[in-house]
Amino acid sequence: MTTVRQAAPAAIERVTIELGERSYPIVIGPGLLGDTAAVQSLVTARDLLIVTNETVAPLYLEAAQRALGPGRRTSTVVLPDGETYKTLESVSRIFDALVDARLNRDAAVVALGGGVIGDMAGFAAACYQRGIDYVQMPTTLLAQVDSSVGGKTAVNHPQGKNLIGAFHQPRCVIADTRTLDTLPVREYRAGLAEVVKYGLIYDAAFFEWLDAHAEALVQREDAAVMRAIRRSCEIKAQIVAEDEREHGLRAILNLGHTFGHAIETATGYGEWLHGEAVAAGMVLAADLSTRLGWLPAADRDRAVRLLERFGLPVAAPRIGATQARELMGMDKKVLGGRLRLVLLRSLGAAEVVADYDADALREVLEAHFG
Amino acid sequence: MTTVRQAAPAAIERVTIELGERSYPIVIGPGLLGDTAAVQSLVTARDLLIVTNETVAPLYLEAAQRALGPGRRTSTVVLPDGETYKTLESVSRIFDALVDARLNRDAAVVALGGGVIGDMAGFAAACYQRGIDYVQMPTTLLAQVDSSVGGKTAVNHPQGKNLIGAFHQPRCVIADTRTLDTLPVREYRAGLAEVVKYGLIYDAAFFEWLDAHAEALVQREDAAVMRAIRRSCEIKAQIVAEDEREHGLRAILNLGHTFGHAIETATGYGEWLHGEAVAAGMVLAADLSTRLGWLPAADRDRAVRLLERFGLPVAAPRIGATQARELMGMDKKVLGGRLRLVLLRSLGAAEVVADYDADALREVLEAHFG
Repeated sequence: MTTVRQAAPAAIERVTIELGERSYPIVIGPGLLGDTAAVQSLVTARDLLIVTNETVAPLYLEAAQRALGPGRRTSTVVLPDGETYKTLESVSRIFDALVDARLNRDAAVVALGGGVIGDMAGFAAACYQRGIDYVQMPTTLLAQVDSSVGGKTAVNHPQGKNLIGAFHQPRCVIADTRTLDTLPVREYRAGLAEVVKYGLIYDAAFFEWLDAHAEALVQREDAAVMRAIRRSCEIKAQIVAEDEREHGLRAILNLGHTFGHAIETATGYGEWLHGEAVAAGMVLAADLSTRLGWLPAADRDRAVRLLERFGLPVAAPRIGATQARELMGMDKKVLGGRLRLVLLRSLGAAEVVADYDADALREVLEAHFG
Repeated sequence: MTTVRQAAPAAIERVTIELGERSYPIVIGPGLLGDTAAVQSLVTARDLLIVTNETVAPLYLEAAQRALGPGRRTSTVVLPDGETYKTLESVSRIFDALVDARLNRDAAVVALGGGVIGDMAGFAAACYQRGIDYVQMPTTLLAQVDSSVGGKTAVNHPQGKNLIGAFHQPRCVIADTRTLDTLPVREYRAGLAEVVKYGLIYDAAFFEWLDAHAEALVQREDAAVMRAIRRSCEIKAQIVAEDEREHGLRAILNLGHTFGHAIETATGYGEWLHGEAVAAGMVLAADLSTRLGWLPAADRDRAVRLLERFGLPVAAPRIGATQARELMGMDKKVLGGRLRLVLLRSLGAAEVVADYDADALREVLEAHFG
């Protein structure tokens, strides 16, 4: 299966995730939420529940409602903002809203917000009446390049991130890049961490391009941002189309995530943004790859420097190697007790590895976590 | 796709649900939990969480643990007994137990109990780490003939039954018919309601056989019980294999259930057993079918008499036609506002119908619910 970018009106890009009858488009463009015709053609359900949060609602709820147009029955549930609220309790509030609105199997959920909203709204849609449709309207860079695409939905458990969830593909992803204008700088940068990830794991040329356009991306220049999002979605689409349920290849999308999950859990959800933890985690993964003799030290250092130029943390918090190792053991990528890690064979090529040198891992954990 | 019954050792019956790579066996026999070799060959996961309840644990937990054998890492969670506990909160306790035991993607959940345990354990397995394996060990007649087979998992919402759930097929179903010896008479009879359902919707000859062997079934005679369970599983296997996710045919398995859900919700979960509510609901469905001129009155009356001989309630509670209609509207089988009902064209042939005469429905609701 391959990913096809189709012709589209000026300034609107379209990437398709090819998954047979579950295929769907990612539509990307500045001002998409103002393009009523585009949105209405993408969203077919008559009855909708919009799930959003207290930060996004004042900014974009009205625009989303207008874009979805008249002739629908639309309800809304507004959740508190933040990773700390990515819980079964919040999803339970979405279920209540679905039931209160008497929504049936032909209704759809619309996720308007960042990754937390998308993950929870998608999970609620996966479970309500054993599965109804949902639409992603991501409003953060991280959601537009990563979490809204690919059908992974989840909530956190007090003892581990994303431990409860489902694979449930959205009907479409509608990414209005204008919504990034209101994104706090720290969150914008956190999104860039996942963009760098795509270069590191899959596309050396894209990494080079990011390196050459780092300043334009930091300045949020339209053309650069659009290109970065589109290429990120293309890479994710290719990987997901090949391995929807993460039996193999898809796991490379978790570069830096196992280390990052340990950081997020040890410091408490919300202290480090997900993208920040992934940035520091990718530094650990790159360093381990170098120590194992896979990744040239110069390439590791280039990766670290690019993350630094994007204003991302490259030093892990001193949570201690022992605690870090323990928390990594709760990560979903552990199989049969052996921790599998995503490592870099070179810039642009990642691999999931279980037979690495355990001493090298311990050294890296001690060097970075203390 | 067809259902194949394979040769098996004496007294052990095997029915296969044909679902491609998700195919699995239903193994039925007296004393199966004592057949360590059979159980061990069916359950391959090394790490297990057994989910059971306070009633079943003292009776069969030790036997199940022994049957699963040594060389595994087995934890247990014991939940309170009853439909009132079929909630997201109970499933949350299963998640906690999975996390506490540090179980990973290669672990499996074992549901040891009736339909409530099976539905919750299956739903937890569907969501934990976005889906791990599970095994059904049904200990009630209702679970052995219906709820443990077919991959529907769910919990109740305060405003409606099974509103939150997933389609997630088990790896196998291990039905030890000896466990029925300890089943309270009321629960045993409730299971017979679903057995009658299979005759009514799919197999007139099976209905005749049930009619002829009603006394043996009431007396729980081994040969009759085995045959009733096996034929029920065969019919369910055929229907599920044709329509796993209930896009069409599978809905006929809900004969009486939309009326029954209204009874269960109005009277509070646990007051009426599910099978009892289904029995009374099937009477309504049969009566409506007769009033619409589909089902001869004599056949309706035969169905009612068989349910009565099984000691099942055939008179609905007087919850009022208006409330009943409102609660039926929250049932998942409502599509686009129009209540779809499963009706009988004849004994042994059911159909999902949306274009029935609404006046006839109102008359039936008023006649039965007051």
